[in-house]
Amino acid sequence: MIPPSGLCVGLDIDLDRIPEYLRSRTDAVERFNERVIAATRHVAACYKVNLAFYERLGRRGIEALYATREMIGDAYVIMDAKRGDIGNTSAAYATALFDDLRADAVTVAPYMGRDSVEPFLAVPNSMTYVLALTSNPGSNDFQRLTIDGEPLYQRVMRTVLSWQRQGDVGFVVGATHADELAGLRSVFPDVPFLIPGIGTQGGDAAATVAANGNGPAVFNVSRGLLYISTATDFDHAIKAEAERLATQMRS
Amino acid sequence: MIPPSGLCVGLDIDLDRIPEYLRSRTDAVERFNERVIAATRHVAACYKVNLAFYERLGRRGIEALYATREMIGDAYVIMDAKRGDIGNTSAAYATALFDDLRADAVTVAPYMGRDSVEPFLAVPNSMTYVLALTSNPGSNDFQRLTIDGEPLYQRVMRTVLSWQRQGDVGFVVGATHADELAGLRSVFPDVPFLIPGIGTQGGDAAATVAANGNGPAVFNVSRGLLYISTATDFDHAIKAEAERLATQMRS
Repeated sequence: MIPPSGLCVGLDIDLDRIPEYLRSRTDAVERFNERVIAATRHVAACYKVNLAFYERLGRRGIEALYATREMIGDAYVIMDAKRGDIGNTSAAYATALFDDLRADAVTVAPYMGRDSVEPFLAVPNSMTYVLALTSNPGSNDFQRLTIDGEPLYQRVMRTVLSWQRQGDVGFVVGATHADELAGLRSVFPDVPFLIPGIGTQGGDAAATVAANGNGPAVFNVSRGLLYISTATDFDHAIKAEAERLATQMRS
Repeated sequence: MIPPSGLCVGLDIDLDRIPEYLRSRTDAVERFNERVIAATRHVAACYKVNLAFYERLGRRGIEALYATREMIGDAYVIMDAKRGDIGNTSAAYATALFDDLRADAVTVAPYMGRDSVEPFLAVPNSMTYVLALTSNPGSNDFQRLTIDGEPLYQRVMRTVLSWQRQGDVGFVVGATHADELAGLRSVFPDVPFLIPGIGTQGGDAAATVAANGNGPAVFNVSRGLLYISTATDFDHAIKAEAERLATQMRS
């Protein structure tokens, strides 16, 4: 199921950047995320949970991951894990993410091809975002290589769209590539995009929204939203910034 | 640190395929792995733990993952997770795998480029296997695309080898591509390979060993070893088969 377009709140937890009074608590992640979610629930189109930041904390982080999933409740949630493996192994990841962590959507890496992506696409009422042109500097290394006059990321998109599926499919296109985003919208006007990279990574919210035009898209902001205040009432600042961003992304 | 060449035992746990008398136990994974490890320790060059099969089991699976890591002890262990994300996120995955799960080696997906791989390469005394030509059918979809007369997988290998690193680096090359493996050995004679796909996936052990020649390599067998017997003394059958495979891979 495609999420509503708008602001995606990325819950990329960093214990070194959360307000100091929370850091020493064993449930610091849960208490921080609880307030972020409460402060943004009225304007967030969805939440994105990047598993790396929880796995980094070991077993305690895994507990925080499951607790965070519970807090998100009925809101739309993207489990951002960028998995991808041979068929039977991708099927195991799909179970972990869609069943056990109750993801509405997941992110998947395309390098291993069709049988590595199809177990995700085979889940009914699901949403799979395949990496296309990512927001990071390394997107220049392989994604932009030219094959028969076409960049690899566009070849990936065309190929993935030709595969069978029960759920919906879309792509990750970084906000740091506004020109390419606009170009992709002329080729794929109705395909859902997950657009990260606004804020800390350098993507400008207004320019990204303009480049995307009317295509279905969620615009993710993580560090640029979560860590704008280290005060005890940090959630007030997050609420105001989330409202500002959400308005921009709706217009 | 590069592992000794030889048999890699893949601990891809599948509760539907382990001996029936173990299945109903809450610690089925631990008890099965314990016997597999005991039966193969004298001949295994390394163990490979694919995280998907543990994550699929939810929090119980994560506990089994950590318990399995403990059981492996001082033997060389590859945490096969195929992670890869933007720089700060890959750094979090590197911490999760090398520090928290005490991996000797990890597998990494290259699609997101340099800053997605370098946090793994930056870990001293580590080993990173980057996906090149994988063992699955989907390896035909993107990995073999031609760029300036060269397949993408070879471009990935050349490019990754040019990046800075503190640890060692190698590549995943599937046993299902014996011709390409032999060809890659003429270009990269001394680069470590992790070679999966022997057995269930169709790779032939003797042909793969011959194609690899004298290059440093571990040859992974998972399902073709773990599930060869469903008897109560299944570990006897595993021990005999592991010894047979290890002899073949040493010669």
